[in-house]
Amino acid sequence: MVNNQKRRPRIAFTLGDPAGIGPELGVRLLADPKNRQKADIYVLADRIEVEEAAKAAGVQVPIAATPSSSAVAVLDDHSLPTDPIPMKKATKAAGERTLHQLRRAVDLVLADKADGIVFMPLNKTSLHLGGMQELDELRWFAKLLKFDGFTSEINIMPGIWTSRVTSHMAMKDVPSHLSTSGVVSAIHLLHTLLHDSGIENPRLGVCAYNPHNGEHGVFGTEESDIIQPGVEQCKAEGINVEGTYPADTIFLSAKTKYDGIVTMYHDQGQIAMKLIGFDGGVTVQGGLPVIIATPAHGTAFDIVGTGKASITSSQNAFDIAAEVASRQEK
Amino acid sequence: MVNNQKRRPRIAFTLGDPAGIGPELGVRLLADPKNRQKADIYVLADRIEVEEAAKAAGVQVPIAATPSSSAVAVLDDHSLPTDPIPMKKATKAAGERTLHQLRRAVDLVLADKADGIVFMPLNKTSLHLGGMQELDELRWFAKLLKFDGFTSEINIMPGIWTSRVTSHMAMKDVPSHLSTSGVVSAIHLLHTLLHDSGIENPRLGVCAYNPHNGEHGVFGTEESDIIQPGVEQCKAEGINVEGTYPADTIFLSAKTKYDGIVTMYHDQGQIAMKLIGFDGGVTVQGGLPVIIATPAHGTAFDIVGTGKASITSSQNAFDIAAEVASRQEK
Repeated sequence: MVNNQKRRPRIAFTLGDPAGIGPELGVRLLADPKNRQKADIYVLADRIEVEEAAKAAGVQVPIAATPSSSAVAVLDDHSLPTDPIPMKKATKAAGERTLHQLRRAVDLVLADKADGIVFMPLNKTSLHLGGMQELDELRWFAKLLKFDGFTSEINIMPGIWTSRVTSHMAMKDVPSHLSTSGVVSAIHLLHTLLHDSGIENPRLGVCAYNPHNGEHGVFGTEESDIIQPGVEQCKAEGINVEGTYPADTIFLSAKTKYDGIVTMYHDQGQIAMKLIGFDGGVTVQGGLPVIIATPAHGTAFDIVGTGKASITSSQNAFDIAAEVASRQEK
Repeated sequence: MVNNQKRRPRIAFTLGDPAGIGPELGVRLLADPKNRQKADIYVLADRIEVEEAAKAAGVQVPIAATPSSSAVAVLDDHSLPTDPIPMKKATKAAGERTLHQLRRAVDLVLADKADGIVFMPLNKTSLHLGGMQELDELRWFAKLLKFDGFTSEINIMPGIWTSRVTSHMAMKDVPSHLSTSGVVSAIHLLHTLLHDSGIENPRLGVCAYNPHNGEHGVFGTEESDIIQPGVEQCKAEGINVEGTYPADTIFLSAKTKYDGIVTMYHDQGQIAMKLIGFDGGVTVQGGLPVIIATPAHGTAFDIVGTGKASITSSQNAFDIAAEVASRQEK
């Protein structure tokens, strides 16, 4: 049963990289009354950043000391550097600013003052210049949250979610990182998240690793040796999961047959998801003890300030985080 | 310069698996006067098979002793088994019949009586039941043609062609099968085929093997160690080729920026190509000394005889084979 004892969620919100389209998308989200209806929103930013971005975007963001359906709270720690951060490019200053506010969002969660985090687009180069040592944000968040369990980036297009057994690593290292426990964890993770998003009995499909689903073992045995036992274990637990299926056809029926697809490696899912669509895509830092969601796109330096940036992915990220945060067991 | 000294090509043509949609698609192609305009067509079949399939499909196939723009030749060797071949399922009999006519098509090429082969859909299970030992048709054709050079299945959607450095093998074996010479061969093959299809200076893009294009070596070094040197060598030869690019974004711009994409492994291209579209897809047995083309779809047992089978892929396969055969250097 889906948990319908929903509580009003508390969302920690950051504007992402200040040099990109994050601030303009962020204030457009915050200005929309329906988003304040869905959650208490704590914005990690200096108040002047929110006000200037709102002015530039031509929207009004109501701000109050306590968040409610009529206003957001801005947790201003007066940390904006005096030197202006260069716009539309990757810099150390932008990376440091981005990481500072993300750290504060995590602190809010750790202090049990927020149930979820939504952040606007980041720039990986800026993050590394700004001091992020980890290979990706997911590992950075995991470290900050002192979480060492199974994690997986979750890629979401409206109607179809994916998890991965392996992610940011060399392809030659994938076979040694595939394990039945990893398959089980990736299925559990996707099942739980979809369930917390409000789907009672999510339908999951699992990709084969090898071409032609291994062609009965002729093109590899990971299907029968590693993946299938994980699928069977989850089925026995009552999870609605099927597989393995060839990766080059499973996505064709994804939208009609499945709510989620479990993939074995990064590009297997990402080649498909990016072709299925760009606008509306969301990334969830899956497996962590708190829901963290962000639009799937980047900082789009080329369209900053033009008003061309689409709000769809950011809106979807906010909706998913608010929905999951409202139901997630603590 | 594209070779515009085109000759009238001679095409050896088979109906594919007799239990599937091959015969009905085949006679619809043969009945269309514009196809006879493009090539002299030799049909490897018993005359009664052609006549019965034409009657069932409601079309007329003009037959003569010598092929011309007004009729096809049917090379009837009276080999149809007396026991009827079961329809709509994979059987030994169907496989043997299919292989028999494909062998005769290859013989015609070896005797320099045909410049290309077009075959209607096959069923892999029938082929194996019927005696095919090889893992795929490409290796079967290569053996029959006594060809031991580089081959690659070429997958084609209208406007975008792909070749592969590795193909039907376990994913764990891919890294040890990637080589600079393989990359060069896959680029050469695609360049030559596109050129022979009438594109003067085909634009080629090359996929990375690892996620994020290897992320500057952090997610693998095959890009810099193996693939890039192959791309550079081909550039130096004057081929219009770029890469490497991340596999999860290159296909998004494929139709506007490239005529062909070189992939590193089977699913990398096939996940994308099947999402880009199914109807119209063509498979070319690439690298062989003769052009061999077939529709990308299978025998579709569920719609045999209903008239629902789309002719588009078969027509595209015929057009590509006729065009390449008319220009290909002998």
